[in-house]
Amino acid sequence: MSGPAPFTRVAVIGLGLLGGSVARAVRTYLPGTVTTGFDADPAVRGRAREIALADTIPETAEEAVAGAGLVVLCVPVGAMAAAGRAIAPHVAPGVIVTDVGSSKAGVARALAEALPGVTVIPAHPVAGTEQSGPDAGFAALFRNRWCIVTPPADAASGDVERVEAFWEALGARVETMDAEHHDRVLAVTSHLPHLIAYTIVGTASDLEEVTQSEVIKYSAGGFRDFTRIAASDPTMWRDVFLSNRDAVLEMLQRFSEDLTELQKAIRKGDGAMLFDTFTRTRAIRRSIIEMGQDDARPDFGRSHSD
Amino acid sequence: MSGPAPFTRVAVIGLGLLGGSVARAVRTYLPGTVTTGFDADPAVRGRAREIALADTIPETAEEAVAGAGLVVLCVPVGAMAAAGRAIAPHVAPGVIVTDVGSSKAGVARALAEALPGVTVIPAHPVAGTEQSGPDAGFAALFRNRWCIVTPPADAASGDVERVEAFWEALGARVETMDAEHHDRVLAVTSHLPHLIAYTIVGTASDLEEVTQSEVIKYSAGGFRDFTRIAASDPTMWRDVFLSNRDAVLEMLQRFSEDLTELQKAIRKGDGAMLFDTFTRTRAIRRSIIEMGQDDARPDFGRSHSD
Repeated sequence: MSGPAPFTRVAVIGLGLLGGSVARAVRTYLPGTVTTGFDADPAVRGRAREIALADTIPETAEEAVAGAGLVVLCVPVGAMAAAGRAIAPHVAPGVIVTDVGSSKAGVARALAEALPGVTVIPAHPVAGTEQSGPDAGFAALFRNRWCIVTPPADAASGDVERVEAFWEALGARVETMDAEHHDRVLAVTSHLPHLIAYTIVGTASDLEEVTQSEVIKYSAGGFRDFTRIAASDPTMWRDVFLSNRDAVLEMLQRFSEDLTELQKAIRKGDGAMLFDTFTRTRAIRRSIIEMGQDDARPDFGRSHSD
Repeated sequence: MSGPAPFTRVAVIGLGLLGGSVARAVRTYLPGTVTTGFDADPAVRGRAREIALADTIPETAEEAVAGAGLVVLCVPVGAMAAAGRAIAPHVAPGVIVTDVGSSKAGVARALAEALPGVTVIPAHPVAGTEQSGPDAGFAALFRNRWCIVTPPADAASGDVERVEAFWEALGARVETMDAEHHDRVLAVTSHLPHLIAYTIVGTASDLEEVTQSEVIKYSAGGFRDFTRIAASDPTMWRDVFLSNRDAVLEMLQRFSEDLTELQKAIRKGDGAMLFDTFTRTRAIRRSIIEMGQDDARPDFGRSHSD
């Protein structure tokens, strides 16, 4: 980060994994910037104060946003409208409101309605872990990850640039696109993978002829990777599927067709088709590692000692 | 490992990820045991000699098994019959042949036919990474992982115990079950997860409205986890699906039904159903970590620096 900090005071609303990481990252990478934090859950506010997640964590959203140049909404996408309404009367002119929601078209509509006349520049840092809550965040979460900014058509370029500068300061690489395209891209790179992981973990726990204890014991054969994703926050993911319904259903339809093709190949014993499919998927993994988007070590670098 | 080494000489046939790991693990954890290695591919034999994967790596399977008390077949399950036939004339009385194949009923039949009169005790160490080839293996691969031994009904208990002692010496925890049950258990904990991962990576690379470059850039949203599994060895996995066809198709049928239920819930906007499903899958992750079958650190302990 060269140049002055893009904002002197940043308010973080919602202090879970993402909000906590934003607050910690500001402290680490923008040390001159003051942070305030708020969470609608008093227990989360209490815990956030204990671990000093932000410089101040007042009792109301009103106090949290007072004097802030940037407000970052870090609540589940289904709670964005309510969070927007709670701060609406207290957002001063010139303040920018952004968010970290995993779907963007629905969030943009909800925030535009909840915050009439306010500058809203939605964003989505493509980063996270399976953990949640105020203790789960860490400052380096966004480093070398992409943050997708989806400015409304009428956004002032200066406002967009300040939001981009903020995410770049936290270590993210920034890309802009329109909200609808974002939602199609993330439907395939994030939402569909989560839906499938939740499904297979559910399928495995419902079996009668294979016990749950066997599923757990022999999970190192591949299943355990899916359980990590399927341990993600249920509220967050319920809201993602409800808010990005059309794109998720479209990607799911294509996935189901492809799965049916492989199912037919297995049934018919078509080894050549299976081999071809399994060969071309290797190249994608290689590209992801070359782009710095995953750990190159085998097994993600998992510990293999006991 | 207390007591004497279960075998004084071990032959490893097939020197990829699994064979290389067995050879390295014997050297590390059973230092008094002599290892010989063989691979049908001359290039693999050459590389294995360069890195001294086994004490000797002769030019023929016959020489590799000469004098061995245990022969471990580490080839794709579709190549087991050929590997068995290649060593059949050279296996001395009293020698035990075992394997590391991911499906067991078909392998047991193939080896019984290829090795008439020979003691065959099939086994499956539930361990691996997405890498393959003679350089990919490491001695700790089996530590704290389960190895499932599937003895034929007429196996002598002393022979089964020696195979169990071998895997325990390499650090594995051993369980026995019949081959058919193994194949159902692994269909859900390993084969179906791989099939689904291969499918979704294929689906994502075929899209027109989302570019391959976008899929790669934004893969940290969940997709990249699937690409690791879908980078596994294509020959190995083609053979697994062909050899464990019935159990895989049965599990796939259940998965498809469950996916249809979630699809309906998304279409209808049934948030309560989604939330309930996403909540109960968290418990399985917790159990897997408590059982020591995965890394407890967020994101598998992936590196988050740049």
